[in-house]
Amino acid sequence: MIGRPLPTADAPHQTIGKAIGLAVFASDALSSTAYATQEMMVILALAGAGAFHFSIPLSFGIVILLTILTFSYEQTIHAYPGGGGAYIVARDNLGELPAQTAGAALLMDYILTVAVSISSGVAQIVSAAPTLFPYRVWIAVALVMFIMVINLRGVKESGIVFSIPTYFFIIMMYTTVILGLLKYFTGSLMPVINPPEIEMIHAAHPITFFLILRAFSNGTAAVTGVEAISNGITAFREPRSKNAGQTLIIMAFILGSLLLGITFLSYNIGALPSESETVISQMMRTIYEGRGVMYIAGIVATTVILVMAANTAFADFPRLSALHAGDGFLPRQMTFRGSRLVYSYGIVSLSVIASLLIIIFQASVTNLIPLYAIGVFLSFTLSQFGMARRWWKVGHLQPGEERVEKGSTLRFENGWQYKLVINGFGALVTFLVMMVFGITKFLDGAWIVIILTPILVSIFYAIHFHYKRVASRLSLTNYNVPPKIRRHRVILTVGGVHRGSLTALRYARMITDDVTAVHVTIDPEESQRIQKKWEIWGDGVRLVVLDSPYRLFVEPLLEYIEEIAKNMQPNELLTIVVPQFIARGKATQLLHQRTADTLRKELLFQKNIVITEVPYQLGE
Amino acid sequence: MIGRPLPTADAPHQTIGKAIGLAVFASDALSSTAYATQEMMVILALAGAGAFHFSIPLSFGIVILLTILTFSYEQTIHAYPGGGGAYIVARDNLGELPAQTAGAALLMDYILTVAVSISSGVAQIVSAAPTLFPYRVWIAVALVMFIMVINLRGVKESGIVFSIPTYFFIIMMYTTVILGLLKYFTGSLMPVINPPEIEMIHAAHPITFFLILRAFSNGTAAVTGVEAISNGITAFREPRSKNAGQTLIIMAFILGSLLLGITFLSYNIGALPSESETVISQMMRTIYEGRGVMYIAGIVATTVILVMAANTAFADFPRLSALHAGDGFLPRQMTFRGSRLVYSYGIVSLSVIASLLIIIFQASVTNLIPLYAIGVFLSFTLSQFGMARRWWKVGHLQPGEERVEKGSTLRFENGWQYKLVINGFGALVTFLVMMVFGITKFLDGAWIVIILTPILVSIFYAIHFHYKRVASRLSLTNYNVPPKIRRHRVILTVGGVHRGSLTALRYARMITDDVTAVHVTIDPEESQRIQKKWEIWGDGVRLVVLDSPYRLFVEPLLEYIEEIAKNMQPNELLTIVVPQFIARGKATQLLHQRTADTLRKELLFQKNIVITEVPYQLGE
Repeated sequence: MIGRPLPTADAPHQTIGKAIGLAVFASDALSSTAYATQEMMVILALAGAGAFHFSIPLSFGIVILLTILTFSYEQTIHAYPGGGGAYIVARDNLGELPAQTAGAALLMDYILTVAVSISSGVAQIVSAAPTLFPYRVWIAVALVMFIMVINLRGVKESGIVFSIPTYFFIIMMYTTVILGLLKYFTGSLMPVINPPEIEMIHAAHPITFFLILRAFSNGTAAVTGVEAISNGITAFREPRSKNAGQTLIIMAFILGSLLLGITFLSYNIGALPSESETVISQMMRTIYEGRGVMYIAGIVATTVILVMAANTAFADFPRLSALHAGDGFLPRQMTFRGSRLVYSYGIVSLSVIASLLIIIFQASVTNLIPLYAIGVFLSFTLSQFGMARRWWKVGHLQPGEERVEKGSTLRFENGWQYKLVINGFGALVTFLVMMVFGITKFLDGAWIVIILTPILVSIFYAIHFHYKRVASRLSLTNYNVPPKIRRHRVILTVGGVHRGSLTALRYARMITDDVTAVHVTIDPEESQRIQKKWEIWGDGVRLVVLDSPYRLFVEPLLEYIEEIAKNMQPNELLTIVVPQFIARGKATQLLHQRTADTLRKELLFQKNIVITEVPYQLGE
Repeated sequence: MIGRPLPTADAPHQTIGKAIGLAVFASDALSSTAYATQEMMVILALAGAGAFHFSIPLSFGIVILLTILTFSYEQTIHAYPGGGGAYIVARDNLGELPAQTAGAALLMDYILTVAVSISSGVAQIVSAAPTLFPYRVWIAVALVMFIMVINLRGVKESGIVFSIPTYFFIIMMYTTVILGLLKYFTGSLMPVINPPEIEMIHAAHPITFFLILRAFSNGTAAVTGVEAISNGITAFREPRSKNAGQTLIIMAFILGSLLLGITFLSYNIGALPSESETVISQMMRTIYEGRGVMYIAGIVATTVILVMAANTAFADFPRLSALHAGDGFLPRQMTFRGSRLVYSYGIVSLSVIASLLIIIFQASVTNLIPLYAIGVFLSFTLSQFGMARRWWKVGHLQPGEERVEKGSTLRFENGWQYKLVINGFGALVTFLVMMVFGITKFLDGAWIVIILTPILVSIFYAIHFHYKRVASRLSLTNYNVPPKIRRHRVILTVGGVHRGSLTALRYARMITDDVTAVHVTIDPEESQRIQKKWEIWGDGVRLVVLDSPYRLFVEPLLEYIEEIAKNMQPNELLTIVVPQFIARGKATQLLHQRTADTLRKELLFQKNIVITEVPYQLGE
């Protein structure tokens, strides 16, 4: 089931235009409109329904934040036409530690993207089919597993696959919002019928500035995903920076207008935030006057875009891991896409951790949101500071001078001061938002991320130091080529005299003249039979029979090998040749011992011993 | 934790005398006195308390059965001084199928021994500490896990380890029974105070013959384990058959007398069978007049011997598996004791299945007993028929003639007719008991065993046929030695130019002159650096650089190898030499890819390709 087609899935897309680019990169950002309004209202509800009107100015605040980010990232896209994710920008301009920090924050955030998006998707499903409410955690976990299998299997993801759900969502949402606004201005917009019972009837808080900031923090979840395009510039058709930049602006416009529209309408119909029915669902059924076809279409569109958003995290996670790995902060094998095993581990880990989060937080977006966004804003901040630093460097180059960095090439540009100001301002704003988020959400769960980020960064550095140590040990500086090998012995393990062992014997004879065959026996009779057959077929090679009175197999062999190894000179080398049957089926293969693996494990730290398995295909 | 010391645990014991032999081999048989009486009473209770008096004649019936078995096995012990388990006796005298059947039945029975003994042990604990009753299933599972860890770890099992609990149990039980009988004959034996409430208050059955047979079947659990000594004759001091035989008789005497004593006393104090308090516990607290020190000592002794009995199954299971494997009916690697991995799999499987049984049957001996004993009696029957067959063969030899079979040597003996009659009678009786058991217990659970046995035997034969097919394919009959190898190419994979790859290069150069180094690159700059370094250190070997624009690693390498393999002649051979870093720690080892393993998996069915890993010890 989880078989071969990985390479196609990982093959690069044809370069794409703006229309498809929007479809591919926008799902993460746009899907957050499905929960941002509701999560602001959840906090405002603590001060009673009278505080809901704050959601409208807060949404404007978030749109301003979105505008700042769009300007900032537009600059990044032009500066890093080869891809300008936070990791690369931070690495090239701020150094290793900020880059590792930004990466760690983002890796955790991808996991949360899965958990939050799927939880919100399930909340939409449950809104339309309330009988499913008790099963929401398991539906969410099942969806994660579904995406996992798709990604393990590897599916050819064409532009169409992304376009249909994204544009369906955009069209459905605009239709809903515009219809809603028409009704509002013609005075025919009714309040929600049977709104869900509001669950958070705490002792009504006063409306404090802190509460407003908390609500704002929740709303910032809307801007997560804005950075997606800056990671994927290379996917765009030339002039790619221009195309990518314009796509970013279009995306930001759609995101901002939808957020404002949804918030405005939700407020005016008197929607209430609830775990049992989403604000989106309340808005849809009010505007479409019941749970008819349009309502269902709207809920389906919202659910599907949320699942797509979760799916993008499955692509982003290994891509970012590969960057870390390439710089030696994660296992090197992650650098390569093709390593199916490693890739699969990554996908499975991501799914398992996201599922655990869903189970622990009961598939509630409200419970998960305090962990979300803080990582994104940390990476925003580092990325913008990096960009500001970059403009400073650009401004101090001579005109015509070039400076090649890993991620991009620096050339003097006029007006670098303005650009520095834009990114610097972006850095400042995102930093402030991050602080606000961290403080207002600290006890709600942000502390988990605040503790985990430095731990993760420490692990990255531990890995990095290991590789550095290894590199210095492997270095050829002051390396004396070891003496030429004077003697190459081969020990051939022989379980019986048959085609398999003769194939191995032929191999052993080819690589040296100094071959000893060894047979471990627990049965003297069988041993005699083997010795007789060996006289005929053994090609003159000496056969040593090791008695194993206690029915041990590896131990006598190891003893024999270690005895020889002890007396070896530094210019001697020992190869152990092991015949290995290869059966067609996996089950039948279990019937054949893998002696070489066992020996390899036992002789791991013995120098100058090589273990070679000579396969013999049974070919049944 | 589950580390090294296996070899010592598997090392043979010093040969032992009768006293220690009894301790080592008797726990399985003697421990069944802890539940046999109670399980008879459980059935009799269906006909009301008035039927309990049948337990005494039934116990006499079981003692007669025990006597027949003792005579039969005494003969087996003398005939097979090298060990005469049912498998060997059936194989040598009845053929393959009966031997496989006997083995399959016994393997299942070992699992049940664990489940039943531990469940009974926990029932004793719960009797003494009734507050633990709700946790009995988990206590039982924890005990199984404890024994598993002990066995995985490997503990040096000296005679003392077995002697203390076994003799403690024997002494405690005789003390109790003798004291009880004294009280009975002096008229001071009181009825049980506060007997447990009897749970099986079904509509009172009439006392039918069928009911009596069912009760008898339950009681036969008492004789399981009698065969243990016949498996372990080689452990005894010379004259070993004589010593083993006498030990068997002593064991049977203790077992029979304790069973009669316990049943007699249980009846006379009016003990009632119950899940909440065992009959043993009721008997002990009545005789010792309360839950004092002696009571506690008795319960502890009973619990410990039951745990010891479960532990013996952990030794018997791999021992019997090794016999099957040696004859090619189970994976060959099981033949050898030393294969830690296989051994561990066996121990873990045994523990997991036994735990599942305990969970499914709620740690109730009464629920488990219908699955037990039928396998034992099947193997008794086959073993006794085999012995009868053997005496027939012995009787038809000429005096002085010898016939060597796998398990023993046959010589003419006078009086073979009497011996034939004894074993033949034993076979008949055990066969009848098996039939009675199967019929009376069929619906209670015996059907599970009756279905599983042929399935297991079929699996054994499937394995056997695989090995036979392999053997015929490997056979050297009509084998033409393949042409001498004319060309031996080596492909050396090079990730970077360092001590590790140079060590591998040295190895490659040693085994052939035809070496090509191959480097897969995703970074053109790095590739140039490597090419330059290779010019200095590469010893003139050609370096091929494979570009991997899609960040794949294994795929381009495989393509290259397969291209070469396609054009290979039958007298050409290809070795792929892969440098491999060996780090000290397991965690750090994960930071280094095992390319050879990946290649081996992908090239499994390619002929004439050998993959060799050249280790380079980082030695941190």
